[in-house]
Amino acid sequence: MQAHSDQARISGKTVVLVPTMGYLHPGHLSLVAEAKKHGDEVVVSIFVNPAQFGPGEDLEAYPRDFDRDRALCREAGADVIFAPDPDTIYGPGYQTYVTLEKLPQHLCGLSRPVHFRGVATVVTKLFNIVKPHAAVFGQKDYQQLLVIQRVVRDLNFDIDIIGAPIVREPDGLAMSSRNTYLTPDHRRQALCLSRSLDRARERVQAGETDPDRIRREALESIEARPDAVVDYVTLCDPHTLEPVSTLNRPVLMALAVKFGKTRLIDNRILDPRP
Amino acid sequence: MQAHSDQARISGKTVVLVPTMGYLHPGHLSLVAEAKKHGDEVVVSIFVNPAQFGPGEDLEAYPRDFDRDRALCREAGADVIFAPDPDTIYGPGYQTYVTLEKLPQHLCGLSRPVHFRGVATVVTKLFNIVKPHAAVFGQKDYQQLLVIQRVVRDLNFDIDIIGAPIVREPDGLAMSSRNTYLTPDHRRQALCLSRSLDRARERVQAGETDPDRIRREALESIEARPDAVVDYVTLCDPHTLEPVSTLNRPVLMALAVKFGKTRLIDNRILDPRP
Repeated sequence: MQAHSDQARISGKTVVLVPTMGYLHPGHLSLVAEAKKHGDEVVVSIFVNPAQFGPGEDLEAYPRDFDRDRALCREAGADVIFAPDPDTIYGPGYQTYVTLEKLPQHLCGLSRPVHFRGVATVVTKLFNIVKPHAAVFGQKDYQQLLVIQRVVRDLNFDIDIIGAPIVREPDGLAMSSRNTYLTPDHRRQALCLSRSLDRARERVQAGETDPDRIRREALESIEARPDAVVDYVTLCDPHTLEPVSTLNRPVLMALAVKFGKTRLIDNRILDPRP
Repeated sequence: MQAHSDQARISGKTVVLVPTMGYLHPGHLSLVAEAKKHGDEVVVSIFVNPAQFGPGEDLEAYPRDFDRDRALCREAGADVIFAPDPDTIYGPGYQTYVTLEKLPQHLCGLSRPVHFRGVATVVTKLFNIVKPHAAVFGQKDYQQLLVIQRVVRDLNFDIDIIGAPIVREPDGLAMSSRNTYLTPDHRRQALCLSRSLDRARERVQAGETDPDRIRREALESIEARPDAVVDYVTLCDPHTLEPVSTLNRPVLMALAVKFGKTRLIDNRILDPRP
């Protein structure tokens, strides 16, 4: 992969990376489409990264279908698939991790303590292996996008990070490889995530400035679903993820909710300005 | 710096980095000479890295003389000096660190708990800024060299790491920018480091296989100096730095000794094979 990218760079091509864990859905394919706008050579990495799963999480269960992914990548116009196996990526004596001191102390980092260390580490590795000029990440994993932007700035990677909007099912559910875990009943209940964000936007547009009131309303409506277990519903600064006390500038509303073993996330920027 | 290296790479040049903290001595210049053997464009970085100094260490006191360093670099045939200021390297909101789980749990890492995190982080940053094909490090900082080799392998940097031998004063003292701190009396006493390593080599060549006996003998001779305060004297595996119980293969003998506020280190590989 490094030799291929060296060659592409020497011949003046712009390399763009789309890191994924595979089991591709239209959300991923929108990242590939975005990548094609920014470069000549689009590399999709497919790697279910053990380092970003904690004990008891769904590493083994995580859905995989390489043949289908390959066909989808080809169709979407990707030029290269980089799909290493875990023993190559984490070899004998592996011991080096990229850690962040502040961003992981919020949102998903609280219930998934090793997650962002795993993300920052594997993305650093992918950057060094694929040597891209740019990389595209989905805004659905908003905190992940912030973490990557911070790693790139802090570690001086010469790589442009491009965020791409959330892609949703027709009824509003944010696309995720994990949606495949949902029973039909949970799939219906799971609409509460996007609906809470829609409702919050309406409330802000109608002049609500108290983040606590918006948060409580969302909590109530989510907890009214029989199987929803809230991990967090948070309104916070979209750059630092620190809590906010009033809605006088754009804030991030982010939520994580479990249905059985399936943990779903969603988010939206709420902008109080007219 | 990134644009300069991109240009050098596109024009087919091999870029070699020599990272230093400045106040250059013949040891550093031997690294530049080594670098010139491996590439077309030698970049010397000069940066006293705050992240690798703990509280109470000698960050402020560390000797600096940029004009002298620049003249020495020119004379030694370096092509570029990269000398950033700390506020550029650690900007507002800085929070990302490269950490290793095992190697820092030995030798200097025990008395300098943040040191190797700072080293691994700044070297990662320098690699991303200078984009070298290869980098040269001195074997005097043996543990540092191991840490860098591990970071390169674990994080998939496409960079060759070259270790260069210790350069010594005529009487045997390993060259170090910190030697300048020594009083004439401490300078004389400091010879005990290299002498202990010489003596250990003689003992191993004479058939000694007990690392404890060699260690005790070194401790006794060092502690016989009136102002020597031993941090560690260790015989260990040269790859993992784990302690060894017998000398049936090459081992690393490493030591750290303080004279007043000045902490000196030295090391040698002891090879029992004839």
